[in-house]
Amino acid sequence: MKEYTKKDFPVSDIRRFLEPGPIVLISSTWKGKANIMTLGWHTVMEFSPSLVGCVIANGNFSFEIIRKSRECVINVPSVELVDEVVGIGNCSGDAVDKFDRFHLTPVQGTEVSAPLIRECFVNLECRIADGRLINAYNFFIFEVLKAHVATALNKIQTLHYRGKGIFITSGELVNKRHKFTKWKDSPNF
Amino acid sequence: MKEYTKKDFPVSDIRRFLEPGPIVLISSTWKGKANIMTLGWHTVMEFSPSLVGCVIANGNFSFEIIRKSRECVINVPSVELVDEVVGIGNCSGDAVDKFDRFHLTPVQGTEVSAPLIRECFVNLECRIADGRLINAYNFFIFEVLKAHVATALNKIQTLHYRGKGIFITSGELVNKRHKFTKWKDSPNF
Repeated sequence: MKEYTKKDFPVSDIRRFLEPGPIVLISSTWKGKANIMTLGWHTVMEFSPSLVGCVIANGNFSFEIIRKSRECVINVPSVELVDEVVGIGNCSGDAVDKFDRFHLTPVQGTEVSAPLIRECFVNLECRIADGRLINAYNFFIFEVLKAHVATALNKIQTLHYRGKGIFITSGELVNKRHKFTKWKDSPNF
Repeated sequence: MKEYTKKDFPVSDIRRFLEPGPIVLISSTWKGKANIMTLGWHTVMEFSPSLVGCVIANGNFSFEIIRKSRECVINVPSVELVDEVVGIGNCSGDAVDKFDRFHLTPVQGTEVSAPLIRECFVNLECRIADGRLINAYNFFIFEVLKAHVATALNKIQTLHYRGKGIFITSGELVNKRHKFTKWKDSPNF
């Protein structure tokens, strides 16, 4: 499987990888047991502190792991991992060691106990920043503490999920930089 | 500009259009003044009720309009509207009538006062369902009350924003339906 050389990346700039809306893999650990889940419901919320909101349905084995440990890693897979993404989303960590079954490599991070997934080109070490909407909406607001990103990003395509087993891959770039009359690098936008 | 024939679409299924992460146009109105903004920070939050979370920075002219009216329409543009998307994101409704300047057509909805944008292939009529994170994070949780979707969806490409003036267009479909061992049409997934 593909491996990447990675370097630290500014956490305030990670919107570059999440705002386009890729499916992500969330890794977590609690009391010696690591797990991975597939997740499509996330949004960037702030540049600095670097905040990301994620809906983690409470039926998932990862839900309690993340709520108790208050940590996770958000990993962005490329299209080559589509079968792992589907497989991980279709079994439960209750019964399966997903790192083992899907031949993925856990890598120790520096800020959290949750393992990074080596085979993903972006790894974001996260801690819960605000849990007040967990009970009402399963909505976790994470702060990204550290970002590890592949040094060679050219030609990496991401997967975007639309439900019912159908993914859309990322396509061509359109550069409209010259049309930005005033530089507003904000969500809006 | 392109126009679409649209029909009602089940609000519980609108993840199909938002989960892949497209840039959207938010239209709103208050006291006779309509506005449009460009937005990339959104996530689906629930199927039923159909909930969508959006970060609307409080510096935007639309922020107060939406907070006061408690309504908006989320419109999904195709790639053909890229210059409108950029232009709308680079001027303020304080000074500009954006429907007029960008030659977009406001259409009256049935559930909210905010106008739909005719030239977008998806229009979601929304009302604020939970505003408790507006002050802390500019985070609005909307309920989608009614969805209008183009009848011909083939070959429509969406725009996905990664910051600094660069968009990614949506690419090829990958159908992995046969690999879904148990049908979990959930966010996770």
